[in-house]
Amino acid sequence: MKKIFVRDLDHVPEGTAVTLLGWLKAKRNLGGLLFVDLCDSTGSIQIVVKRDQADSSGPPDQMEQPVATATATQVAGAPYRLLKAASQESAIKADGVVQLGQSGKEVHVTAVEVVGQAELDLSPRPRSDFDVFDVSRADHLLRSRHFYLRNEKVMAVLKFRHLLMRAIHNWFNQHQYVEITAPVLTPLPLYDDKTALQLDVHDDSVFLTQCVGFYLESAVHAFERVYNIGPSFRGEESRSKRHLMEYWHIKAELAWVNLEDLIRIVEDLISHTVSVVEPQSDEIMSALGTQLCMHGLDTPYPRITYAEAVERLHHLGMEFEFGQSMGSKEEEALSKQFVSPFWIVGIPRAVEPFPYVVDQKDTRVTMTADLIATGGYGELLGVAEKIHDLSELDERMQEKGKFGDERYDWLRDLRKNGCVPHGGFGMGFERFIRWLLDIPHVRDTIPFPRTFRRRIFP
Amino acid sequence: MKKIFVRDLDHVPEGTAVTLLGWLKAKRNLGGLLFVDLCDSTGSIQIVVKRDQADSSGPPDQMEQPVATATATQVAGAPYRLLKAASQESAIKADGVVQLGQSGKEVHVTAVEVVGQAELDLSPRPRSDFDVFDVSRADHLLRSRHFYLRNEKVMAVLKFRHLLMRAIHNWFNQHQYVEITAPVLTPLPLYDDKTALQLDVHDDSVFLTQCVGFYLESAVHAFERVYNIGPSFRGEESRSKRHLMEYWHIKAELAWVNLEDLIRIVEDLISHTVSVVEPQSDEIMSALGTQLCMHGLDTPYPRITYAEAVERLHHLGMEFEFGQSMGSKEEEALSKQFVSPFWIVGIPRAVEPFPYVVDQKDTRVTMTADLIATGGYGELLGVAEKIHDLSELDERMQEKGKFGDERYDWLRDLRKNGCVPHGGFGMGFERFIRWLLDIPHVRDTIPFPRTFRRRIFP
Repeated sequence: MKKIFVRDLDHVPEGTAVTLLGWLKAKRNLGGLLFVDLCDSTGSIQIVVKRDQADSSGPPDQMEQPVATATATQVAGAPYRLLKAASQESAIKADGVVQLGQSGKEVHVTAVEVVGQAELDLSPRPRSDFDVFDVSRADHLLRSRHFYLRNEKVMAVLKFRHLLMRAIHNWFNQHQYVEITAPVLTPLPLYDDKTALQLDVHDDSVFLTQCVGFYLESAVHAFERVYNIGPSFRGEESRSKRHLMEYWHIKAELAWVNLEDLIRIVEDLISHTVSVVEPQSDEIMSALGTQLCMHGLDTPYPRITYAEAVERLHHLGMEFEFGQSMGSKEEEALSKQFVSPFWIVGIPRAVEPFPYVVDQKDTRVTMTADLIATGGYGELLGVAEKIHDLSELDERMQEKGKFGDERYDWLRDLRKNGCVPHGGFGMGFERFIRWLLDIPHVRDTIPFPRTFRRRIFP
Repeated sequence: MKKIFVRDLDHVPEGTAVTLLGWLKAKRNLGGLLFVDLCDSTGSIQIVVKRDQADSSGPPDQMEQPVATATATQVAGAPYRLLKAASQESAIKADGVVQLGQSGKEVHVTAVEVVGQAELDLSPRPRSDFDVFDVSRADHLLRSRHFYLRNEKVMAVLKFRHLLMRAIHNWFNQHQYVEITAPVLTPLPLYDDKTALQLDVHDDSVFLTQCVGFYLESAVHAFERVYNIGPSFRGEESRSKRHLMEYWHIKAELAWVNLEDLIRIVEDLISHTVSVVEPQSDEIMSALGTQLCMHGLDTPYPRITYAEAVERLHHLGMEFEFGQSMGSKEEEALSKQFVSPFWIVGIPRAVEPFPYVVDQKDTRVTMTADLIATGGYGELLGVAEKIHDLSELDERMQEKGKFGDERYDWLRDLRKNGCVPHGGFGMGFERFIRWLLDIPHVRDTIPFPRTFRRRIFP
């Protein structure tokens, strides 16, 4: 079917005959005139139809019945009668002529076809205006996520997701990274078996990837700059607003870099991608009624050491012991002291995994940094130098109780064959979106969320 | 570490001091002169070092021992002695001066550091020249895939994969598709539970996606044009050279399209992406010693009906019954009759899943087409119109024994709420690469292959 997208009507002169294909969003009946908002993926346009003789010969307005049945979804006939009878969210084909109305371009309808009737009792109607992020509605909205994707705000978030994903891929591409589509099925569930989803393949117990870091560490010795954007899985129990069981994980690894390089690289990635999507996001932001968070542009981001962060927490009267992992509570308290994202440098060795380099100047901490978002959104990502010396690795594996686990032998072998200083970073893509769009729960940033306490559906 | 990539030496004038960071690929000792091929991710350069006084004061050449040990990988010292002792594939830092030698630019070394010694006994050496696609070596090469990624031919294939992936994403983006990162975890294993990988989450039995078609059918009613490129899983037993257990699946779905539209769209996608990667692939092709398959440029591709295909098989003396699914044997025989990819139009309803539209002009077949590659590479992809009318869907579900299975209710519901004519296509990304690069087994087109009879490792 030859169609014109609603957005393209901007460039169509008055008097042009067009065919619209879309969905009935709303209608108003003013005497013998029916005003219908017809929407498609690009926007919404008013179409106008007059009651004519053919319509008068039908049943009176008040008693009209829906025209379509489940067995005959495509119905043609007198435009007024058809549109009047069509329920909200029905799929409509409308032929008409472009005119300039009181509130801009509109289409005066000459023929109508109801392509797919909307017979399902869905409340609120997916395309209607309501608070789609309202937590009290979450259960219902997620159970019918296959319909609520049509909501204007949901579409705006997912269009933004698409834009941002493209900007990130393009940034990696411009900087000569090679994309490594690392496997989901892995014999090594990263550092902790307990938080991994497990399945049997060929009577072998394998895991769904929690992080592709080990595969990138291999590939970086070929390509020097590699990245991976793909699904990652965490089986751990969580009620937080920033955890998903299945999320998209942005990982990169580079040869010949140190912590300072990694911090600069991440600052460039974030500020560059925000500056690329910003000018393309006007419609998205107006649909969401919000503003894009621009704090990521203020590079370089301030840095505090982990030790300073602990001092600040104590100063705020919070109990926190050096060596612990910071949680949302701590990150939120600290983020109130900054107007831009900030780095906590040198995360303790006690909470960081074995491949991370220990700081020789303060052996309590590692050569790592976590980037904390503004607005209480917590940790966005972490960067880390990786150990390239075998004896250092073995020492850390012993410290973490991993030494002797044969599944890690190939990672030890990597250190025996031309291994070079390398490091990388990892970010949950959905957290990045959540922060930039100021969205209450991370589940609203992905098309079909999988969270911990919710049955997997649809 | 400030480094210069080998490729960038092209633009560096003679006499410039540079620091190279790379790997020792090969070396030749001609009297007191050592010629070393140092490679990085961008290429290989000859570096030259002379024996000097410091070296003479060391042990004689014949008795030199490797310098590095596992506990001291970074070793500095007299360049000649260090490089002479360093094993192949060691990681090297070399300072030197760019000079014009007999065979082009070379670097005359002033200082050397062995950053990571290569002590592992790997044969063949990953960076050496050998037939990396040789099936008799496959077991060994796949077990050490984390090292053989460094092989020049493997790198060439994976760089091509990267290029092609970018070209495909860009094509979708240029045509206003929205990327739907559909979930891997699903309660619905597409059409057949038996071929799906299963796992338990929250005591619920769920599956790894075999195809994201159902999710795209939902999303197409919001965005009209959607696509998905992500991992897909098939648990079925197979010895074929074109099946992976985990592969990257390119799927797209469009509203308001018919079979004719879909065929044109796919022809444009394939011819466009081939024409985009071709001019960027010279180095890759020369590393592989092959030529990029250009047959995809000859659009439109010829079409035969399924019935004609069966006739052709009979004419070739092959036994084949109307209604069966064609396998590699049949596809290969037919592909010898064409010099370009070709379409088999109208695949029988008996072998196509329930959402595919039945052809009203010949109800034995569906509104589908399969694209068959040249060179005996078999099916590349399939396109299909999807049913949007509920009663039609129910009829097909009954035919396929799916009617009454409540897990499919949400797909029936989709047909009750403004459903529109739609259709899509799906392609295994690795098959596309295999065809274009003429690679014997599809496992060689993905960084860490998972195949049916091989334990998942690394």
